[in-house]
Formats: sequence, structure tokens, C-alpha cells
Amino acid sequence: MDTTNADLIAIKQKMAKTNDLFNTEVFGKRNFDALDQIYTTDAHILPPGAPPTSGRQAIKGFWSGLIQSVNAKSAVLESVKVMPTGDGVVEIGKALLTIEPPGQAQSQIDVKYVVFWREEDGRWKWHVDIWNMNA
Amino acid sequence: MDTTNADLIAIKQKMAKTNDLFNTEVFGKRNFDALDQIYTTDAHILPPGAPPTSGRQAIKGFWSGLIQSVNAKSAVLESVKVMPTGDGVVEIGKALLTIEPPGQAQSQIDVKYVVFWREEDGRWKWHVDIWNMNA
Repeated sequence: MDTTNADLIAIKQKMAKTNDLFNTEVFGKRNFDALDQIYTTDAHILPPGAPPTSGRQAIKGFWSGLIQSVNAKSAVLESVKVMPTGDGVVEIGKALLTIEPPGQAQSQIDVKYVVFWREEDGRWKWHVDIWNMNA
Repeated sequence: MDTTNADLIAIKQKMAKTNDLFNTEVFGKRNFDALDQIYTTDAHILPPGAPPTSGRQAIKGFWSGLIQSVNAKSAVLESVKVMPTGDGVVEIGKALLTIEPPGQAQSQIDVKYVVFWREEDGRWKWHVDIWNMNA
């Protein structure tokens, strides 16, 4: 598949919509069912400090556990580089997480990530998601 | 581009060759010029605990510094999932690093990674490389 400029602008808009859902719905409202619109059914996550996890149901368990345990408030994602490839897209991005663990002050964490995106049911979703911290 | 099974087998063999060079030449012999055959010219790495770095020259500086500072001995890479996409490949893998920092016993570190591969000058190389630790 050749991706034209017009295609790419449309894809980037859909990607931004998915990334925004992760912040507003998953982190902001703890609506973990929104992850159905963010990850493909057979997605893979590779979180730092934990084993890799595959499949959307297991991924929902991961985020639900992590967000509640550190009392996460927001995850603002920013695309740094978007590389269309075949039917997918490889994205390099950065994120700013805000957390407020019980008994601790609110703090922010700089994260960088790579996501391999695929289209599923008319939405652009995360098929492979790996991240780490800058410090 | 549609990747046939025969193509994919050939690509996987070339990928294994690149991954092996990283272990034997870069880690084993500290031949950092071998990184020319491993990373694309404008590659990106996203190392844990450090800012992202772009461009092969800067990447050579990163690996040269890290390998010497922790006295790294080997990095055995294993492909876990290989996903052809357009002209590239997205690989999920795991690595076992062996290090022996000055004054410390030899130890091993479990790493997982995602690499976005592209072909350059007839070789399959790492264009985007991100990793983190399981523990």
C-alpha cells in the first residue's frame, strides 16, 4: 500500500483521537472498556519492569491494576515521528504521566514509546506497544 | 509489498545474521564499526534511563559508552514475533545480556525489545530500536 499525503493526514487525525481516548477515558475516567477502541484484539504490550502481555483482556487487567495502584491522573501523548509502512504505521512518541500515589505528592514521569499501529473495525489501534522512562 | 513465505524465510535469515553480529562483533569484540551493518544511517534508539538518540554516529557513541562502562560480555537476541509490514518488518524479541562491571560478579539481565527493520544497502537493519527490562 502506498500512503498518499492526504491518507497520512487522515490517519494522523485518527491516531490522535485514539491517543486522546487513552488520556481522557482510560486515565482520566478509569473507563477501562475504552481500551477496546485503543488496542487491537491480539495486541502486545511490553511494559518496563514487568513481563510482556498479549491479548486485549490481559492488557485491560494490566492498565486497570497499574492506574489504580499509582493513582494515575493523566497520560498526555505526543507523536514525535509517524512512519507509514504497508497497512500499518510505526510511531515514535513521548508521554507525560501524572501520578499521585497514596500519601505522596503528585509527580510527573517522562516516558517515551514506540507503537505499531493497525486498523481494526475502522479505527486505528495499538497492535504493539512498548515504552520506557528517560530517567 | 506482499511478503510471500519464501521472502519471509529469507528475510528472517538476514535478520538473524544482523542480530548475531550485534552479539559477536559489537558485544563480543567491541568492534563498534560493525554497527554500520546493524543500524540504518538515520536510525533511532530509545534506551531505558536515557534520552532518545538518532543517527548512526550518535548510536555508536551510545553503545561504545554503555558496553565499556558495564563491561558487557554478550547480548544474545531471540526473535519472538516477526511481523512483515510494507517494505519493513516489526520484530518483538528478547535478549539476555551478560555484564561484569568492575569489582562486581558477572550477572545477567533479561531484556525485551521492539525493532522496526528496514533494508539498506542489501542488508536488513534496525531503523527503530527500543527496549526495557523485565525487572
